[in-house]
Amino acid sequence: MLKISVLTVGDELINGEMSDTNTACIARALSAYGFALRDAQSVGDVEADIEEAILGLCTRRDIVIVTGGLGPTGDDLTARAAAHALGRRLVLHDDALAQIRQFFARSGRAMHPRNEKQALLPQKATVLPNSCGTAPGFSLRQGGCDLFFLPGVPVEMEAMLHASVLPRLLERCGDLAPGRERVFKIFGLHEPKVEEIVAAAPLPEGVHIAFGVDFPLVHLKLRARGEDADTLLDRAEVPVRRALSEHIVAVGEETLAGNVARLLSASGLTLSLAESCTGGLICARLTDISGSSAFLERGAVTYANSAKADWLGVPAAVLENDGAVSEACALAMAKGMRRAAGTDLALSVTGIAGPTGGTAQKPVGTVFFALATPESEQVKGYLFHGDRNRIRTMAVCMGLEWLRRYLVGRQT
Amino acid sequence: MLKISVLTVGDELINGEMSDTNTACIARALSAYGFALRDAQSVGDVEADIEEAILGLCTRRDIVIVTGGLGPTGDDLTARAAAHALGRRLVLHDDALAQIRQFFARSGRAMHPRNEKQALLPQKATVLPNSCGTAPGFSLRQGGCDLFFLPGVPVEMEAMLHASVLPRLLERCGDLAPGRERVFKIFGLHEPKVEEIVAAAPLPEGVHIAFGVDFPLVHLKLRARGEDADTLLDRAEVPVRRALSEHIVAVGEETLAGNVARLLSASGLTLSLAESCTGGLICARLTDISGSSAFLERGAVTYANSAKADWLGVPAAVLENDGAVSEACALAMAKGMRRAAGTDLALSVTGIAGPTGGTAQKPVGTVFFALATPESEQVKGYLFHGDRNRIRTMAVCMGLEWLRRYLVGRQT
Repeated sequence: MLKISVLTVGDELINGEMSDTNTACIARALSAYGFALRDAQSVGDVEADIEEAILGLCTRRDIVIVTGGLGPTGDDLTARAAAHALGRRLVLHDDALAQIRQFFARSGRAMHPRNEKQALLPQKATVLPNSCGTAPGFSLRQGGCDLFFLPGVPVEMEAMLHASVLPRLLERCGDLAPGRERVFKIFGLHEPKVEEIVAAAPLPEGVHIAFGVDFPLVHLKLRARGEDADTLLDRAEVPVRRALSEHIVAVGEETLAGNVARLLSASGLTLSLAESCTGGLICARLTDISGSSAFLERGAVTYANSAKADWLGVPAAVLENDGAVSEACALAMAKGMRRAAGTDLALSVTGIAGPTGGTAQKPVGTVFFALATPESEQVKGYLFHGDRNRIRTMAVCMGLEWLRRYLVGRQT
Repeated sequence: MLKISVLTVGDELINGEMSDTNTACIARALSAYGFALRDAQSVGDVEADIEEAILGLCTRRDIVIVTGGLGPTGDDLTARAAAHALGRRLVLHDDALAQIRQFFARSGRAMHPRNEKQALLPQKATVLPNSCGTAPGFSLRQGGCDLFFLPGVPVEMEAMLHASVLPRLLERCGDLAPGRERVFKIFGLHEPKVEEIVAAAPLPEGVHIAFGVDFPLVHLKLRARGEDADTLLDRAEVPVRRALSEHIVAVGEETLAGNVARLLSASGLTLSLAESCTGGLICARLTDISGSSAFLERGAVTYANSAKADWLGVPAAVLENDGAVSEACALAMAKGMRRAAGTDLALSVTGIAGPTGGTAQKPVGTVFFALATPESEQVKGYLFHGDRNRIRTMAVCMGLEWLRRYLVGRQT
């Protein structure tokens, strides 16, 4: 088993400004290929500390993955520290310079002379291409240890991890039967309840379960190793799907919004959205997905009553008697939106996200949803708990879930 | 300066299940009291790894704060590993046992026999009370090093950090003036350019700079220590503001959207939004902020041409001749939105977020903005680079920035 460590570099990681997410990202990628991370360290932008950490790791580990400190500014010190730690000179690397120049050429910007510094790498470094940023990564071999240096920006780091680091790890290890994982995203049940349900389901031997939370979703992870991993997971999936059935809102990499978009595309139905308390978030989630213009006709964020009246034709009597946050208003919004947009489906959301605006009858967290379809209209109110952000997140998921259930129900 | 390290223990921290947030929490608390964290490490629930980490740290550091691995189950190994590392016996600690019993009595639950294990601590440990959980913490003195062992559950850890760890640190150090930081969020300049500009600005001695990136914003951080820290930062802020002037879009905790919301509230002006390629994201950012209903009348996500025509009155000729992604269309959207909503301001965005839909004349990343105000209308096109997510993020910031510049310009 390869001994692998991660070293993350950056003042922001040890001064409280942000939590390190690169370690978890690397650990997930490693474990998907059957590797395991042994430990992780973070140091600030201090040359001596980076040097000490690299020196300590390269004698005890087979693989060291370093992230951060490859930028163009004066506080980016990783390449210099690595050179010192390993007793190498820092040299201007032509391949790296060419890569930086190309990046600027591609993005149509002028290269600042300071970016040249990013091509100063330790002697005998191998340059690792960075497809989405200026900082080239590099790797070094020192004794039995492979050291990889990647940028700290998560999206760049992750791309280079997959493109350059994992292939080298697999090469060192020969063929390793990768550990496999299958993730089920669950809405409407909390973690202990999911655990209880799954404990009663007959999973084949060799399948392990783990949990994660991405509020308000619970992620149930089935894991297996070895050559039969996929077969085992296929067999485990049957009882899990049976036990959790309608609570599974997405599987694997797919998101709930992605699932809804896929179902909508397949159905050929068109959609419009009338949002109030979610402020355009449901629309934003769906339009995150390329191709959403095929089904999404329009969305409205009708914060003011005049907007609800003008565009959605919500009657003045409803706004006066029931109020903007009410079953009647949600229903009028969905029906009015469907009429205005001429779409097959229209979803509306109206509620009180807080922290102000709540009353005894309608406390903060009160949210009404309505869905108008060619067949009928449904409307229902919920009471969500937590702060503004949590209530809005919950409302976005519930809105998407209403769409998902309707679309799934239509198929059967 | 005390040399302080954090060691976080738990399989979940190195198998990708979750990111460590305790380190950042501890670092923030330390820096509020003028201390600085030197580095951080994470290891899994492996006794030998915990032992090795403790042993390595206690000779090089003055303070080591360990979190995690104090629970009742078989994979909680920190106390045993600490005892081995420091050559002490593990003994049943009466104070700790009494504390665990009290916790269960208070919460009206029966104590499971496994919880007794949590009172097995290294010899000569000082028990640290845990007001909100079962696991007592403890501290050890080894040579010149104070080691603190806290539970991994963030809320318990944080309470004990403030109750037991920080007082001991202050005792060791006497009174220390806290380090201060001021963050400027910059749009429209990349990192090396900001560094170049700031390098030419006359900053008072004792003020250090550092950088961060939150795409597309660059964060410039001014830092100072000691009793005069605030005065120094006040003095540094003048030349920094002069040098970067209109590129500073927010300061400190505030976001660009928060700044726009504050400026809008102060101005008394109302706003409506007509979004196409940003799909409701600008609206979602502004409605994140409590109180946004005071200025935001409505937003529209007009994906389909029919929506642009119906609601915004975009002329058929514009859609046919210029297309939906054009200066003429952006302008018609903003003017039509302002008229429809009856607001003081209306902002429109229309563009091609990709990955499909680009042409030679209008490649992916082409985005037009228009702002209609009581005084006039402005319109302009940009070409942004990157993937769908990056182009949308850039467009959201540029849209907010148009609003910010208009509102700032109005004040002067």
